Amino acid sequence: MIVTAAHPQAVPDASAHAEPAGPAAKPLQIMPLPSHAEQQQGSFGIDGNFAIAFEGYNEPRLARAGERMLTVLARETGIPLDRHSSAGKPSFFIHTTGPSEHVQRLGEDESYRLEITAAAVHLTAPNPLGILHGMQTFLQLGTISPQGFTVPAVIVDDHPRFPWRGLMIDVSRHFQPIEVIKRNLDGMEAVKLNVFHWHLSDNQGFRVESPKYPGLQQKGSAGLYYSQAEVREVIAYARDRGIRVVPEFDMPGHATAWFVAYPELASASGPYAIETRWGVFDPAMDPTRQATYTFIDSLIGEMAALFPDAYFHIGGDECNGKQWDASPAIQSFMHEHAIANNAALQAYFTRRVQQIVARHGKTMEGWDEVLNPGTPQDVVIQSWRGAQSLADAARGGYRGLLSAGYYIDLGLPAADHYAPDPLGGDAARLTPEQQARILGGEATMWSEFTTPENIDSRIWPRTAAIAERLWSPQSVTDVQSMYDRLAVVSHKLEYYGLQHRTSYTAMLGRMTGGADITALRVLGDVVEPVKGYTRGSLKNYDSATPLNRLVDAVPPESDVARRFRILVDHITAGSATAEEWRQAREWLTLWHDNDPELQPQLAQSELTQELIPLSASLSRVAADGLTALDLLAARKSPAPEWQRSELSFLKASEAPQGVLLNMIAPSVHRLLDKLQQPG
Amino acid sequence: MIVTAAHPQAVPDASAHAEPAGPAAKPLQIMPLPSHAEQQQGSFGIDGNFAIAFEGYNEPRLARAGERMLTVLARETGIPLDRHSSAGKPSFFIHTTGPSEHVQRLGEDESYRLEITAAAVHLTAPNPLGILHGMQTFLQLGTISPQGFTVPAVIVDDHPRFPWRGLMIDVSRHFQPIEVIKRNLDGMEAVKLNVFHWHLSDNQGFRVESPKYPGLQQKGSAGLYYSQAEVREVIAYARDRGIRVVPEFDMPGHATAWFVAYPELASASGPYAIETRWGVFDPAMDPTRQATYTFIDSLIGEMAALFPDAYFHIGGDECNGKQWDASPAIQSFMHEHAIANNAALQAYFTRRVQQIVARHGKTMEGWDEVLNPGTPQDVVIQSWRGAQSLADAARGGYRGLLSAGYYIDLGLPAADHYAPDPLGGDAARLTPEQQARILGGEATMWSEFTTPENIDSRIWPRTAAIAERLWSPQSVTDVQSMYDRLAVVSHKLEYYGLQHRTSYTAMLGRMTGGADITALRVLGDVVEPVKGYTRGSLKNYDSATPLNRLVDAVPPESDVARRFRILVDHITAGSATAEEWRQAREWLTLWHDNDPELQPQLAQSELTQELIPLSASLSRVAADGLTALDLLAARKSPAPEWQRSELSFLKASEAPQGVLLNMIAPSVHRLLDKLQQPG
Repeated sequence: MIVTAAHPQAVPDASAHAEPAGPAAKPLQIMPLPSHAEQQQGSFGIDGNFAIAFEGYNEPRLARAGERMLTVLARETGIPLDRHSSAGKPSFFIHTTGPSEHVQRLGEDESYRLEITAAAVHLTAPNPLGILHGMQTFLQLGTISPQGFTVPAVIVDDHPRFPWRGLMIDVSRHFQPIEVIKRNLDGMEAVKLNVFHWHLSDNQGFRVESPKYPGLQQKGSAGLYYSQAEVREVIAYARDRGIRVVPEFDMPGHATAWFVAYPELASASGPYAIETRWGVFDPAMDPTRQATYTFIDSLIGEMAALFPDAYFHIGGDECNGKQWDASPAIQSFMHEHAIANNAALQAYFTRRVQQIVARHGKTMEGWDEVLNPGTPQDVVIQSWRGAQSLADAARGGYRGLLSAGYYIDLGLPAADHYAPDPLGGDAARLTPEQQARILGGEATMWSEFTTPENIDSRIWPRTAAIAERLWSPQSVTDVQSMYDRLAVVSHKLEYYGLQHRTSYTAMLGRMTGGADITALRVLGDVVEPVKGYTRGSLKNYDSATPLNRLVDAVPPESDVARRFRILVDHITAGSATAEEWRQAREWLTLWHDNDPELQPQLAQSELTQELIPLSASLSRVAADGLTALDLLAARKSPAPEWQRSELSFLKASEAPQGVLLNMIAPSVHRLLDKLQQPG
Repeated sequence: MIVTAAHPQAVPDASAHAEPAGPAAKPLQIMPLPSHAEQQQGSFGIDGNFAIAFEGYNEPRLARAGERMLTVLARETGIPLDRHSSAGKPSFFIHTTGPSEHVQRLGEDESYRLEITAAAVHLTAPNPLGILHGMQTFLQLGTISPQGFTVPAVIVDDHPRFPWRGLMIDVSRHFQPIEVIKRNLDGMEAVKLNVFHWHLSDNQGFRVESPKYPGLQQKGSAGLYYSQAEVREVIAYARDRGIRVVPEFDMPGHATAWFVAYPELASASGPYAIETRWGVFDPAMDPTRQATYTFIDSLIGEMAALFPDAYFHIGGDECNGKQWDASPAIQSFMHEHAIANNAALQAYFTRRVQQIVARHGKTMEGWDEVLNPGTPQDVVIQSWRGAQSLADAARGGYRGLLSAGYYIDLGLPAADHYAPDPLGGDAARLTPEQQARILGGEATMWSEFTTPENIDSRIWPRTAAIAERLWSPQSVTDVQSMYDRLAVVSHKLEYYGLQHRTSYTAMLGRMTGGADITALRVLGDVVEPVKGYTRGSLKNYDSATPLNRLVDAVPPESDVARRFRILVDHITAGSATAEEWRQAREWLTLWHDNDPELQPQLAQSELTQELIPLSASLSRVAADGLTALDLLAARKSPAPEWQRSELSFLKASEAPQGVLLNMIAPSVHRLLDKLQQPG
């Protein structure tokens, strides 16, 4: 039963995603924003007496969720709620109507209602999935206040916009141990993502134990793979958090690791070795031999039994067909069967694999390339090529997911991932029936430059912005609000055990050999790794290359540089406050003065010597910024000589310096552009 | 076989603990310093090809130690040495002569020889214990340099001064989960401690599963205890690291947790509840009933089988005898048996328990109080009362350990623990035979104010100073060198998974609710928790009190305050350099300017409101310091009024402010004392 709120003075215009209507209308500091929220007066306090009561339907998963909530709360507050010491009367009431499906199903009801008053919390949901989500909303709302740890009174009625909200992790290019997977599942739960897409095989490794084909893990993984028991552990762990696990076994390309033990699967004779470099490679399965399908049938049978989810991802991307072109046997097969080209040959392969997947009771999923004339309509298309291909697929009757725009490995700002909408662009012109085929989207964490040490900072907090895109109403689009709340959720995620912030300072400490990291951090805070696929082209990397330099340590998006950019927006628009001018000067002075402090340290470590010119250049950029501010404030013109030379210097500073970008240079460039032309 | 060093140009006077003899004679940056080391020219490089080879005697423990070394190296360097990818030829050769004892024995040979040249490393030892120690020496020597990760060439011949080098952890007052124990065992291995003394029962909890008396853990632990399997896991984990595990079951006092389920053991009728407060309490076992000994016999039998070590600690401390005084039955027993007083009654109890311990094949250990006329000579005395009682015990023929001076829970500086020597004071006057009875010492981590979150920072890095006292030659006493090396080892310990540094910033982040911690940290860096037993007397604490405030977060010893004190030493002595004057001014300015920044933040969090006056007082202390520096530099006298009022203010600021000490105030006080008297 829902108890009426003690102080139900609703603030009508304060629904979480509405435009601010007054001082009380600040959106809830959570991500994703709920579909509907009414903020109330007062707040609920959390102390050592906090206790939970379950009502209605119950199952062990709910008790575990309750304990997990207490653990996170204990970490966040320091109150020993997880130490069996609470003897308090329950004040957090959970009412569950009934069970969810035994195997979590796409499109199951995930809604919940959360009512927080000063006296009590009531969380109700049709099934445990909504309860899990409601607990996360509660956890995110908690804050330290002058009155202790409190949660603002609010009534939340919430449900997701899309039923498929995923995160893909590539564990092939760099293996990610099970504890890395687990803590990221914890992060997914926190932001209500519900599909973990496990990219388990690729050229660089086959990462799951196959009792039927043990050569796959024995020769194809360098010993770095998950046992079947570990996979089951992850699946159970995910289920506890309302997360489905969809495995991917990439084929017919991206499969070199299979060929190490089973070269007969490939389209050219071996031997093969595990690939240690990055890119698209020629080896591909031979789609013309029955033995290939016998192997795939047997393996998929085995994996379909291991992974209970209804969907099974077979990859299908980036097969360049070169081995097919070079094989007389394959060419003669194509001729014989009137297969016109490699695309048609892959379509033939995909159809046969789809039949195998279906025979094992699963629905096939694949990347864009699996969509071909004749592809069965139940195949789910994961679009990496772009929103257009997704819209086309929906028009063609296919269900699909958007991943283009959500490639978090490219190092783009959160705003860039926040903008793309699965129903945006051409998809906005689809009929409602066609739109319903667009199931949601997935962030993709490809792992060329990602180790267990830094993967958290490559995924978080930016993935929370994608989670909001997939959960919250389409109208939730305010970028500034997103960044404000992203900062809050980023801090909260630390209490889930994610290391996206701590790994940065730990890695700086490695670079300085334990010496003070302050100066190095000043530099690190305003640089970013080069974007997109640039990095791989700049240097010869492989899977043994240590990823232990500044580029690997800094977050993909510089928060300081973003905030400085906003200051410069205001200054160049003439709207900056005195405090903003002061802050801009303070930062520029910090960056300018940092170089003499940092230089001797940089020289002492092989890991930082390469940063010597970058630090010097930041100092000069900052000096230019200070000069520009002085001139702007005094409404004076610069010396033409100086402006010419510094504009040219700034332009050069905006280009990648090694594998790093100076993120202050573009803003200072804009300041210089704004200077009065010399009279 | 030992290969001769490639460049054996020994630097004769550069033995690690000798006084500096020249520029090359800087001691090795490790703790504990080895008994003998000769620094050579050149260095050994660590890269992705680093690989280990075992020669001579081998056992699985050695392979695990090798993997552990690679794991720590991989964490420290970021080179993926732990990812099965090295195909390099071995350059680190380990030669073990033979096995060590199946159950590690007190006094086993722990020596090793480590020869590092530019080309190779040779580690040799009579048995695996020395190999474990030698690996840690190698790990500690590694450093990032302009040439990458390198280890300086050196020949180390090393063995411990004392055979018993322990750390006690009290898991009763605050339970410490198994992962906390494990990471601290890793820390112990790093600094060559070899005894983990596990204080498993006390008034606040009985922490180990007893199948024979399940009420002990069921009613005496609030669910927070170790299963027998977990205990075995810890013992195996410790053995892998060359560490013995000595259990302590404290009796006849400190045993309230036993009485919850078994009140008949006590000297007064129950019921009893788990004690939640701190201090000495009245309940004590009834030493007059046979049933008490039957119970103890059975329990010790069970625990003696679980813990393989030859030594068994029965506590024996702080029994106040009040229950005995109040019990007519006990009084009549004493009269009947001509037991003169409570000390004699405890001696009677101790003798009987000793017989039980001996019958189960163990040697008894106890705190000072177990030493009484008639105590068998094989009992080991752990001295908490002072060095004198240890010397007395040795004179009386008993073996003993020093813990007085090593009470790390008291929050004293590392130097205070570095000074006490088990063979110092009166013990220096013992005969060699008597001195040989002094086995070493133990740091003791009592846990009234220690949670799993902050325990690492209460133990580390200060315990490394005690470890050096117990391992290194008696002549190693240079405090400045100790602090220099302590900073290095403190950073290194992070790579073993210890959280002594990260917990500080994480806890500050909790206090600010995720807001910037910079200003709070400026304050935190110069304060310390009150010392000794003061804290408990200032406020009502119990086991449910959250330990989530600044006092719980800051390290016990302020490194910044210590360094400022040295600057003030030099300034007041007239020997300070210009750079030292500059540094002193910079710090004082930082502390002075911090308050306006910090005040608004402090007010926003219930956890920090109490710091408002402390921050203000630091600011004024710093202002006084700046004024004093100006006057000293100008050789001017202060205004008498000002000097009077500020001296009085400083004196007040040196007193505890709540539970915290302003560690800058005493140094500024000294600056003011140094000012010229007004002419």
